[in-house]
Amino acid sequence: MTRPVRITGARITPVAFADLPLLNSVGVHEPYALRAIVEVDTDAGLTGLGETYADAGHLRRLHATAGVLAGHDVFALSEMYRAVADLVGREAGTDRHGLTGAITAAGTADRLFSPFEVACLDLQGKVLGRPVCDLLGGAVRDRVPFSAYLFYKWAAHPGRAPDSWGPALDPAGIVAQARRMVAEYGFTAIKLKGGVFAPELEAEAIRALRAEFPGHPLRIDPNAVWTVPTSLRVAADLAGVLEYLEDPTRGLAAMAEVARRAPMPLATNMCVVSFADIPPAIQRASVGVVLSDHHYWGGLTRSRLLAGICQTFGLGLSMHSNSHLGVSLAAMIHLAAATPNLTYACDTHWPWKTQDVVPAGTFRFSGGSVPVPDGPGLGVALDADAMGELHELYLSCGLRERDDTGYRQSVEPGYRPRTW
Amino acid sequence: MTRPVRITGARITPVAFADLPLLNSVGVHEPYALRAIVEVDTDAGLTGLGETYADAGHLRRLHATAGVLAGHDVFALSEMYRAVADLVGREAGTDRHGLTGAITAAGTADRLFSPFEVACLDLQGKVLGRPVCDLLGGAVRDRVPFSAYLFYKWAAHPGRAPDSWGPALDPAGIVAQARRMVAEYGFTAIKLKGGVFAPELEAEAIRALRAEFPGHPLRIDPNAVWTVPTSLRVAADLAGVLEYLEDPTRGLAAMAEVARRAPMPLATNMCVVSFADIPPAIQRASVGVVLSDHHYWGGLTRSRLLAGICQTFGLGLSMHSNSHLGVSLAAMIHLAAATPNLTYACDTHWPWKTQDVVPAGTFRFSGGSVPVPDGPGLGVALDADAMGELHELYLSCGLRERDDTGYRQSVEPGYRPRTW
Repeated sequence: MTRPVRITGARITPVAFADLPLLNSVGVHEPYALRAIVEVDTDAGLTGLGETYADAGHLRRLHATAGVLAGHDVFALSEMYRAVADLVGREAGTDRHGLTGAITAAGTADRLFSPFEVACLDLQGKVLGRPVCDLLGGAVRDRVPFSAYLFYKWAAHPGRAPDSWGPALDPAGIVAQARRMVAEYGFTAIKLKGGVFAPELEAEAIRALRAEFPGHPLRIDPNAVWTVPTSLRVAADLAGVLEYLEDPTRGLAAMAEVARRAPMPLATNMCVVSFADIPPAIQRASVGVVLSDHHYWGGLTRSRLLAGICQTFGLGLSMHSNSHLGVSLAAMIHLAAATPNLTYACDTHWPWKTQDVVPAGTFRFSGGSVPVPDGPGLGVALDADAMGELHELYLSCGLRERDDTGYRQSVEPGYRPRTW
Repeated sequence: MTRPVRITGARITPVAFADLPLLNSVGVHEPYALRAIVEVDTDAGLTGLGETYADAGHLRRLHATAGVLAGHDVFALSEMYRAVADLVGREAGTDRHGLTGAITAAGTADRLFSPFEVACLDLQGKVLGRPVCDLLGGAVRDRVPFSAYLFYKWAAHPGRAPDSWGPALDPAGIVAQARRMVAEYGFTAIKLKGGVFAPELEAEAIRALRAEFPGHPLRIDPNAVWTVPTSLRVAADLAGVLEYLEDPTRGLAAMAEVARRAPMPLATNMCVVSFADIPPAIQRASVGVVLSDHHYWGGLTRSRLLAGICQTFGLGLSMHSNSHLGVSLAAMIHLAAATPNLTYACDTHWPWKTQDVVPAGTFRFSGGSVPVPDGPGLGVALDADAMGELHELYLSCGLRERDDTGYRQSVEPGYRPRTW
């Protein structure tokens, strides 16, 4: 009786965009960040958009995924998910992405399915004349708040001109960076990516931020390079200062040990990164807040499941960000708007980027938040010229995998990621 | 940009339909079962359907609920849920339904929201020209299998003519009942409502069913009237015979004790009846299978959340039934069709009823299963004449609360629910 809207194919376009020398626990961001834009075509003549990582192995698997999804109705999300899980089950090996490390087959299926699921929701919305948030239970907020995401950084990529942000290698540099970011975007919460300097120096930066921004919730994320004693020392030092402490140490057991004695909640996007991690994390009480990320939690509907699990088990919910473009920002906004218990300001790398595949002006931050797009689907369109440029940049930049460690070693040959 | 479809009001019609003298642990079904049909009207001229209990207190609260939902867009499910939760929070007291006993405020909100959520999904589907299952991730099966739901029963309601099923008060009567039900509907799984006779006699009935139906998965549900030792004795006795043992004993602690030593999984729709019950049930490992029921789990989208939680924590998922009519059967079918891990045949009281508010022939069982309706929304319509008749029956029958115990006592003055 109802006419299916069938997928006829998908175009997967790797793109690169200029990135700044932002420091983290495993090195420094390379001059270009890689992303893949997924365009899902249908027999209705409509196209849906998704965005994901673009590491070479992931790209290869995305093409295989597109193959098994062709012919499906864009509403048949569960059947498509099963097809992707079957595909991953047939293929040897799993994926690995940046700081979250090796993941399971189920986690790989979630990462592969995600951009297609987002594209299918975009298509459903376009077919129905409804924004994506309406397909997720409807928006409970019309603007989504984000946090200022501060990084220690170099003044410039070696051999290139300095960027407009200048260096940030001490508390004063971090405060200056925060001042500009808060002035330009109006952010009302602040996160510092740590794990770069000695924990005491990073705690000092947090205290400097507190002095400068007495009303802003503050977070620090050293990406699990602190030992349990170090984590506990910093946690005690920053009692009453941090909204939450993100991934101070590695693994569910060590996190649980810190959680038991830390005065603030622990948050994670490293030890709970797939549904399989949830039961042991709850059993051990390893964390108080989970950072969702639809890119590795299987898309927006499965991220809503994660949200429901957090609600059911009394866990807080925040949102993680990798370097991303406008298609993912739209997806993040629709998801956040439709998730009642997402009560923390979401992370985003948005201010660090100067190029995009969506037209400039698509999103306007004000007061630290962005209005929910009200057009059908995701409510964003690609800028064909910009897509072409960023794809050319991908082809010419030479990068095919993210390698923050290798890049930093190319500048500082003796560099090794370390723990404190 | 998109036009909301706003709720203008809801009509809540209590109906009664003839029920048979089916025995359970607290008494016997009265001559009429009560239900409420919810018709949600919109400014688009479309009406959505839901169905729920019709106890007097619940009916009163349904009217209050309709009041707070007027004006909402039918896609704004999360906002509407919040409005219902707020309403329940403001009102003193919570609800109580049949065998599941007293429930929390959150559970009350879920029970009140459910028929409206189903009606809103029906409306969404009608607006979009899509069946409800498409709004839940799409069907993963085109037919939904149900189980034969056997009851000990009297030959007739006292003072009335015998029904066509005859008495079932011993193993032979249960086997005869099963034979007819399997012959007429093709069921491939069988459930016996127990808790009526001594556990040994009920186990004998199960063994008689096994002898007659060697290939059918079998279940028994004594509604928690067995002690832990009795539960363990019956469980050992029926090792290798039962697919699962449903609610042998009362409460999460006792269920956990039985679960640790029983040779088959325990199932429940009594000790896990709302989201608040899930964490302690998982922590104690009280059950292996949860019986979902959209009437008290907050509708279809929240039942999908329950399904996702079961999947995440390695729990099996089945589906519970109270006496219900065709609107609820449609909702159950769409939900079951769209829930990949709902791998057990669902319960239904369907064969016991002779009247309905939907036209005869709306659903056709064959091989124990029912095809998913493929029209927009739920795919069912009300029969106005039948609605009028069953509402008249509600008005004239005199019943306003379900009271299986009181009814049985009116026949057997000394009757008291007991445990074994």
